[in-house]
Amino acid sequence: MKIGIVNVSSRFSRARADAVEAWMATHYPDRSVSVVFHPASFSKHGHFGGDDATRARAFVEFANDPRIDAVWFARGGYGSCRIAEAVLPRLESVARKKRYLGFSDAGTLLAALYKAGFPHVAHGPMASDSVRRDETARRAINWLVKGDEASLEPSLANDPRPAVAFNLTILDQLMGTALEPDLAGHVVMLEEVSEALYRVDRMMFHLTGQSSMRRVAGIRLGRVTDVTPNDPDFGLTPEEIVRYWCDRSGIPYLGPADIGHDGDNKVVPFGPR
Amino acid sequence: MKIGIVNVSSRFSRARADAVEAWMATHYPDRSVSVVFHPASFSKHGHFGGDDATRARAFVEFANDPRIDAVWFARGGYGSCRIAEAVLPRLESVARKKRYLGFSDAGTLLAALYKAGFPHVAHGPMASDSVRRDETARRAINWLVKGDEASLEPSLANDPRPAVAFNLTILDQLMGTALEPDLAGHVVMLEEVSEALYRVDRMMFHLTGQSSMRRVAGIRLGRVTDVTPNDPDFGLTPEEIVRYWCDRSGIPYLGPADIGHDGDNKVVPFGPR
Repeated sequence: MKIGIVNVSSRFSRARADAVEAWMATHYPDRSVSVVFHPASFSKHGHFGGDDATRARAFVEFANDPRIDAVWFARGGYGSCRIAEAVLPRLESVARKKRYLGFSDAGTLLAALYKAGFPHVAHGPMASDSVRRDETARRAINWLVKGDEASLEPSLANDPRPAVAFNLTILDQLMGTALEPDLAGHVVMLEEVSEALYRVDRMMFHLTGQSSMRRVAGIRLGRVTDVTPNDPDFGLTPEEIVRYWCDRSGIPYLGPADIGHDGDNKVVPFGPR
Repeated sequence: MKIGIVNVSSRFSRARADAVEAWMATHYPDRSVSVVFHPASFSKHGHFGGDDATRARAFVEFANDPRIDAVWFARGGYGSCRIAEAVLPRLESVARKKRYLGFSDAGTLLAALYKAGFPHVAHGPMASDSVRRDETARRAINWLVKGDEASLEPSLANDPRPAVAFNLTILDQLMGTALEPDLAGHVVMLEEVSEALYRVDRMMFHLTGQSSMRRVAGIRLGRVTDVTPNDPDFGLTPEEIVRYWCDRSGIPYLGPADIGHDGDNKVVPFGPR
């Protein structure tokens, strides 16, 4: 079982890749599961881990390579929206069979793949976060290897409806674009990191103001962490903000989700289960 | 000529209002032009200058008051998207005759008014910015009093097409909502403040990815100021970012606009002239 790790977003360091490889050597000494980094993952181009063409080519190569069994996003940051439209038409049938795992900025590519009908796309820990905690890495790898149900976000066990999960900012910025998937009837889980609450409020105005979002089954809120200070205090908690906009727009608020920018981030496979 | 000043966004201080009143007393000692602050402008509710109902009522009262000749937004910040839908059905015919001036967060209300067919809506200096520089205050007041053409953004003189101007974040967050005006055939001027360039890039992805935006006459870029540092350097200037997304989406890039979060911010009346 070979997992291909590829970077589609901000710059990625060789040191983080070394940490991932060391973790794998310790935990899979028989190499029954192994990882390989696309060499372009360490490219640099301004903000990005290589220019758009390089990042797009790296993703396409791993997705289409029959020797790679699953594709794992290296890290988040920013940049996948620049390449998502360009990679889709270059993906071959072998790419459809693989599992794809990541979140945060990589959510843009997950959305694009899901919209294109790829059946094994999930929001969950990325390579660079995972090896900070064994449990996180096991959760991610067990899903990549065999779609392990023990890795899944717990509310999925009791809810047969199709689901997706996204960083709020990422989903907000997909709405109305060619990459927006049809989320009608879906449970939509959201998480956020490093945003001020007035921005969270404004994004919820925008997101819940979309006619397409008003057809979802409901919203669950994951963790909203590392909130940028608001002066004066915003006056509402993240949950109160999400409940307010759900109430106002008629979208059911379904409660919490066990996802976020942290080691407890569970796996949410996109679509029906 | 009485200009009503109202706050629809973040908290507004009595001290800023005193500065506006002092400036008016010095420059219009005969009170041929005077300002009046809605008393609710100084309310406080968490982040906001009063709760949503209070801010909405204040705006509606001034818009509908026949003794008020024009409505000037006190300041920006955040909050007008929470009240814009609620105020529209309460506005009476007298409200349609008035001039409305503001920008930044107030752009959401300007968009709502423009969409509702209000003929005298403009992006330009707000009350709190204006009195920092005489020229800025004169420009704003001369437009509020008589629609003075000397106040206008200079490219308007040579371009007969309808125009609008927005803070990039504000327009970005209006797309697809009930408040988005029809901008087909319009010159769209954008400005931004206090955002990182990766966010500007992501917003341009979203904005230019909307089918409605692909019907505009073109985009002009105003000033992008107080840019939040990007580490590493983003690698593109704001103009290069806007040109990139315009090229990619087929929207004509029309050059600079003389607008921004600064004292040189010129007035852009919405629609045809």
